[in-house]
Amino acid sequence: MSNYENTLSPSRERTETFIFDFDHEHDHDPMHLRSILGGKGANLAEMTRLALPVPPGFTISTEACRAFLRKGWPSRLDVEIDEALGRLERRMGRRLGDAADPLLVSVRSGAQFSMPGMMDTVLNLGLNDESVVALARLSGDERFAYDSYARFIAMFGRIVLGIAGSHFELHLHAAMDAEGVRTEGELSVRSNQQLVRDYRVVVEKITDEPFPLEPAVQLRRAIAAIFTSWDGARARAFREHEGIDHALGTAATVQSMVFGNRDKNSGTGVAFTRNPSSGAPVPYGDFMRNAQGEDVVAGTSITQPLSELDAAFPEAAAQLRDAFVRLERHFRDMCDIEFTIEQGRLWMLQTRRGMRTGAAALRIAVAMVDDADIALSRDEAVARITPDHLAQVLHPSFAPDAVVDALTSGLAASPGAAVGRAYFDADTAIAAHERGEPVILIRTETSPDDVAGLLVCEGVLTARGGLVSHAAVVARGWGIPAVVGVSDLVVDVNAARVGGTTIAEGDWLSLDGSSGIVARGPVALTLNSEPPELSTILAWADTIREGRLGVRANADTAADARAARERGAEGIGLCRTEHMFLGADRLPVMREMILAGTEAEYQHSLERLLEVQREDFVDILEAMDGLQVTVRLLDPPLHEFLPDIDTLLVKDATEGLSEEETRLLAAARHWREVNPMLGVRGVRLGVLKPGLYAMQVRAVLEAARMRRDVGGDPHVEIMIPLTISAPEFELARGWVQAAIAEANDDDDPLDVRIGTMIETPRAALLAGEIARTADFFSFGTNDLTQMTFGFSRDDVEGKMMAPYLAKGLLAQNPFDVLDAAGVGELIRMAVQRGRETNPGLLVGVCGEHGGDATSIATLFACGVDYVSCSPFRIPTARLAAAHAVLAATSRRDES
Amino acid sequence: MSNYENTLSPSRERTETFIFDFDHEHDHDPMHLRSILGGKGANLAEMTRLALPVPPGFTISTEACRAFLRKGWPSRLDVEIDEALGRLERRMGRRLGDAADPLLVSVRSGAQFSMPGMMDTVLNLGLNDESVVALARLSGDERFAYDSYARFIAMFGRIVLGIAGSHFELHLHAAMDAEGVRTEGELSVRSNQQLVRDYRVVVEKITDEPFPLEPAVQLRRAIAAIFTSWDGARARAFREHEGIDHALGTAATVQSMVFGNRDKNSGTGVAFTRNPSSGAPVPYGDFMRNAQGEDVVAGTSITQPLSELDAAFPEAAAQLRDAFVRLERHFRDMCDIEFTIEQGRLWMLQTRRGMRTGAAALRIAVAMVDDADIALSRDEAVARITPDHLAQVLHPSFAPDAVVDALTSGLAASPGAAVGRAYFDADTAIAAHERGEPVILIRTETSPDDVAGLLVCEGVLTARGGLVSHAAVVARGWGIPAVVGVSDLVVDVNAARVGGTTIAEGDWLSLDGSSGIVARGPVALTLNSEPPELSTILAWADTIREGRLGVRANADTAADARAARERGAEGIGLCRTEHMFLGADRLPVMREMILAGTEAEYQHSLERLLEVQREDFVDILEAMDGLQVTVRLLDPPLHEFLPDIDTLLVKDATEGLSEEETRLLAAARHWREVNPMLGVRGVRLGVLKPGLYAMQVRAVLEAARMRRDVGGDPHVEIMIPLTISAPEFELARGWVQAAIAEANDDDDPLDVRIGTMIETPRAALLAGEIARTADFFSFGTNDLTQMTFGFSRDDVEGKMMAPYLAKGLLAQNPFDVLDAAGVGELIRMAVQRGRETNPGLLVGVCGEHGGDATSIATLFACGVDYVSCSPFRIPTARLAAAHAVLAATSRRDES
Repeated sequence: MSNYENTLSPSRERTETFIFDFDHEHDHDPMHLRSILGGKGANLAEMTRLALPVPPGFTISTEACRAFLRKGWPSRLDVEIDEALGRLERRMGRRLGDAADPLLVSVRSGAQFSMPGMMDTVLNLGLNDESVVALARLSGDERFAYDSYARFIAMFGRIVLGIAGSHFELHLHAAMDAEGVRTEGELSVRSNQQLVRDYRVVVEKITDEPFPLEPAVQLRRAIAAIFTSWDGARARAFREHEGIDHALGTAATVQSMVFGNRDKNSGTGVAFTRNPSSGAPVPYGDFMRNAQGEDVVAGTSITQPLSELDAAFPEAAAQLRDAFVRLERHFRDMCDIEFTIEQGRLWMLQTRRGMRTGAAALRIAVAMVDDADIALSRDEAVARITPDHLAQVLHPSFAPDAVVDALTSGLAASPGAAVGRAYFDADTAIAAHERGEPVILIRTETSPDDVAGLLVCEGVLTARGGLVSHAAVVARGWGIPAVVGVSDLVVDVNAARVGGTTIAEGDWLSLDGSSGIVARGPVALTLNSEPPELSTILAWADTIREGRLGVRANADTAADARAARERGAEGIGLCRTEHMFLGADRLPVMREMILAGTEAEYQHSLERLLEVQREDFVDILEAMDGLQVTVRLLDPPLHEFLPDIDTLLVKDATEGLSEEETRLLAAARHWREVNPMLGVRGVRLGVLKPGLYAMQVRAVLEAARMRRDVGGDPHVEIMIPLTISAPEFELARGWVQAAIAEANDDDDPLDVRIGTMIETPRAALLAGEIARTADFFSFGTNDLTQMTFGFSRDDVEGKMMAPYLAKGLLAQNPFDVLDAAGVGELIRMAVQRGRETNPGLLVGVCGEHGGDATSIATLFACGVDYVSCSPFRIPTARLAAAHAVLAATSRRDES
Repeated sequence: MSNYENTLSPSRERTETFIFDFDHEHDHDPMHLRSILGGKGANLAEMTRLALPVPPGFTISTEACRAFLRKGWPSRLDVEIDEALGRLERRMGRRLGDAADPLLVSVRSGAQFSMPGMMDTVLNLGLNDESVVALARLSGDERFAYDSYARFIAMFGRIVLGIAGSHFELHLHAAMDAEGVRTEGELSVRSNQQLVRDYRVVVEKITDEPFPLEPAVQLRRAIAAIFTSWDGARARAFREHEGIDHALGTAATVQSMVFGNRDKNSGTGVAFTRNPSSGAPVPYGDFMRNAQGEDVVAGTSITQPLSELDAAFPEAAAQLRDAFVRLERHFRDMCDIEFTIEQGRLWMLQTRRGMRTGAAALRIAVAMVDDADIALSRDEAVARITPDHLAQVLHPSFAPDAVVDALTSGLAASPGAAVGRAYFDADTAIAAHERGEPVILIRTETSPDDVAGLLVCEGVLTARGGLVSHAAVVARGWGIPAVVGVSDLVVDVNAARVGGTTIAEGDWLSLDGSSGIVARGPVALTLNSEPPELSTILAWADTIREGRLGVRANADTAADARAARERGAEGIGLCRTEHMFLGADRLPVMREMILAGTEAEYQHSLERLLEVQREDFVDILEAMDGLQVTVRLLDPPLHEFLPDIDTLLVKDATEGLSEEETRLLAAARHWREVNPMLGVRGVRLGVLKPGLYAMQVRAVLEAARMRRDVGGDPHVEIMIPLTISAPEFELARGWVQAAIAEANDDDDPLDVRIGTMIETPRAALLAGEIARTADFFSFGTNDLTQMTFGFSRDDVEGKMMAPYLAKGLLAQNPFDVLDAAGVGELIRMAVQRGRETNPGLLVGVCGEHGGDATSIATLFACGVDYVSCSPFRIPTARLAAAHAVLAATSRRDES
């Protein structure tokens, strides 16, 4: 419980009292007091202030909850509840538990952030054997009174006492069957009275205590149950997932009851002020006659669409429409409302900003900018769109109503859903693709040999590897949905197994790379078409971040570059040159270079590599004409270009090897590494393989000249990978400069910036030295995270990340969300040190964090100039970059 | 040349003039002005001040050299040379190149640090066709004059003009043969005159220019050649090896000539004031009649021992003995002297502190503390002993006169030389050992399976692996000489090949783990016995570092612990528990634990592991009774305990696998990692294998109780490896505390500190958080270096370190010498942050840097409390720790 001692955040200030009536005169608009009143309490107070018809009540603050969780029920709270209840009783002219004219109340939880997993609502509190008689008498409706009493006992039993609902439903369904009715509201008085008796037996049997009949006890137990539920496993898990502070606590509201189950001229409903699915400016919702709120929400009974409300309750419907307009203008957002009609009179029970789909979010935000009465600013509109909204509109997904025969699940490696037929190697995949079949490529893990197969498939599934495995990286780069690291998947030559299920070649399979789910058969997909408001919002986002935080793409091919540019990339921040050598026509030349026995052979293979590289660059520079392209020189260890040792060894022991294979085996052994992540790669290769980097730079420069010859406007930056020291960078810079001098156009030389990746902790620490001669830094946050944590992503993500997150040893997967405390500190330090010695230093980020919203905010705070991410994450990055700028501006304005 | 722009160090202050006469009135004792005057110039000025007979001259400062290397010959230098030469000519009453009474001079280089590879000495400068005639006339000795002239031309040709000496020797030997004489000094005038002509033809033919006859030109060219030689490849390589700044520059001395080749009453010699080999207080040296200095040094002619000087030159010998005493008292050290006797008169040409063996260094240092006239302090005595001195007396080595048939070389992984017969696997090695044969174990690389073989061998040789490979680490830990990573070694089942040479089983082989040399046949070794002064010096060192910097040992066995304690370890800083599971009787239990299918099997194997661990700890705690033992819980990835996949795969493809092997193969595949260094190891294993760490802690505590039961005094610290965050450490601390609570003696509980390794960059950055609940930190500098640089030592050290050092991309191998700028900064930061939140935090270092002198100084400056190293490096660490304390004290005194 020590969590709750630690209430330092300004959102957790101590208040003078624990309880605030809905019409309390706060210093601020109540809607801004969510940290004290909870969302529900704040909005009820706000609606009260707007003179909307809200049943009176009061809110017990989050502070009371924190006090309770620290040290148990605060005695002060008893006094305050009595006082608040006294005020409410005087205002309503009724007393809780009064045998003559009883007040009934609802008790609801309401935390600062909407949060599933918490105790929700208890209605009709205050009923007991005496007050029910009074209620029957006063309402003149015995059925209603006993219906309410029975509902109360079941609800209290379920929610406060934790009894499974089925215990009560058993009796309810028996009663309904016996009377032959279809809804609870139709039950006779007699049945309801019997239900009251049956329910109380259930309670006594399961809890070993009689049902509490004293209303003051009922109220305190309901409040304590709300507070306790804050600490429940589901609530905790949700908060961990969402990054919500466990120490916030929840508020509780106590509100006088109105009765939708009063009679046939009563009802209850939920409504949105606009369509939450499409965003269309038409109210949307359901209601139900003669029912209480839970009936609508639970979906246990049959509801009517909101459009029929006019016919049923013409006066209340008009009043509700009016309330919708006032709420939208006041909250300046689409609202979600819970209402009750009691004997024709409308009551508003709660409101909040309404959840919406991505498409609706975009449409509503843009519409509210255009609506003169709401006059949302463009900044506000952009701020309201979340990365999840974009993901929804940008990727296909399993259709909401689709039948999903889930088979297994793995790491969600590349978003979007895919359907296709299973193939187990590149060749059969290509053949199937050529026959017109959609292909799901299934491999134990992928290697460069599989690239041709990856190119033609709809989705990728692997048994091994983490989120930066070859399959994952390639799939994300190309926007192919992928699920990787499916640990119970065993892949054979032409079949795979998951548990007892066999997947044969050609079997239909579906996968969702956003959730990691793999399903049998073809699952129906929704083909989300991009709503027209998307480009409007992104253009506004671009205006916000202009000159503050750029967005480039990681793109290795002209096709990627074109896709990135279409999605708004302002250049390429990472053009990896190694992927260019993985094509079936290129890999052999690369291997030739590695195997070269003589200097002449070596130079010959370098020349051939130069030719193929030049071609690639011409196309990329064309796609990015007028924009910067940052070319990273060769980075991966050489064994990535060599065949698998295990396979060759087994072949050697059985069939024997050809001469070529024998040489390849020797080379693979020579270049095999214990820890390739920390091995001979990056600029280290440049040192060991003289002329390699110069060849690459020549290829880039020659391509740029070819572009200029046809009137193009190429811009190139050369990036040295894996630097550890200033002398190392200077040596590499020397090669690059010499190659530029050789290949540049003397009359009108291309201006080429030369910089380095910062991806080792040492480079970050020594950034001041390195920046003296570097024109730019680009943080490779993937590798920097691996080295800072000592995490090999391939190894730890599958085995270790889940337990580490579950046990709270890590707050987030640091490969998803940049680790601000460790890796972030290195980046801050490096940017600061680099700019000290080189004030003009350009700073970018080209790790995958460049496409993650939270990380983008951290990186902007570190002082980076641009982020670079895969083409498919560009829209998210544009949005998140705008959010980061807005957040920084608002922090500045506040201070 | 940009190096020379950068003259920021205080040792490179600018002086007002470029030139200082030997008797210049300096503000400080000239011996302290080595950075300006060079070692030679400083000591000549010092001897001049002591009124010893030094031929007059002047020194051209290092500042002149730096100016020359920056921008070429400084015009100011011409003026100053003319002025200094004028003063020297007036003092000597002779003029350079004078046809009547010529002055002749020697020109020598003299850098701040003694440095091979630089241009050394030109004698007799000033001779030409005219001055030689005057010299002949004035000396009345034509033979002497022409001998000097010929020598001068050859020396100038060789040293200043860079002509190979053989061109001159050809003529010289022809002349000597023709005259039938055995030394140069016996040649006739005629022959010498002919040699002058022949030598000048050689010069003109090779340089295409006539020999320069103008003495002013000779002088300037000699000086320029000295300055230029500072930048020569050999000098640069030497400085890189020794860590000397390239920007220092060298000085040059110009000294009036005296002539040891004047006549039979002349001679020249070199002497040490004590025996440089044994340290015995008896002068030691050689001399030669009628010869110039080079003859003695070159060893081309026959010398006489110094003991015969009395007989040859009684007066000079007495004067020299007197000079020896004065020099020793003045320099307070053993000195190395170059002297010349000209016609019976003694001249001192230079002096410096004499090089000495380790044994001599120890004996001299202790003797000079005892000598009332020298009265060296104990601090000074300790400061004079270098780690190399200790290495010489502590390890056997190839005997200096041994014939070494070098076969190849590799990484010098564990110091000392070994001789034995080649065996290629543990079983044959053990059998040979049991037959009484000394064994050299040769493997491609070693694994835990080889441990039994390692235990019995004299030396280890591997083809693969770097300085932290399994073989290297185990060998260093046990003090077994080892050479690893011999890249041209190919190891087969029962033979090995190096190039064309085959090493068969049983062949004799020798290796030197200090130099990396591998030789055929048995090489004679010197069995250095530890000189008695060693313990005196180390005891003095301990007094200096007491309470400032502790020295513990890395020891995993009782034998290691005993060896460490004998050598002065004050506890164990790193007791690795994994090595305890590698014994032939334990590995199967460890594998059982990994393969355990049920919880019961798992618990059963944990219990069995507990038993074997407990036994080991009892012995270790006994060996370290009364001292702290820091136990590191299990660290390595589990696949280290599993068999090699390749081998099983091949066996599977050929003979097939047993059921056991099939399970082992599956486990090996499951636990196989792409980058094991960054994989599931350390505390991560603790999280994945519940109960493992608790079992280990119970074993330690139960062992401690067993020790107490027999009256022992055990002290235990528990160390969590590979921590990345505070919650992770706190979780592990919780397990440890619970296990301690369970196993501790309630009546008299053992006080156990719980701390963590700091070996990931993130742990260093988050040290403030982690220190809140950690009792101690121990820096694992090996892994911290690997992660900070992104260097997998196994992969980069063999392929990359040599080119990186050669190209100056790294100043030192960061695995040998701690990288102060990168890794050191992380350590400084972590110590500071840790002590901020936990002022009582104990800080140690248990990486291999804990045994390296330079690193120890850096670590002490970072604020660590103790270092821990392998038992065999303990004496070095004790000495280096004292040095670090002394250096810090002297820095404090100076400021």
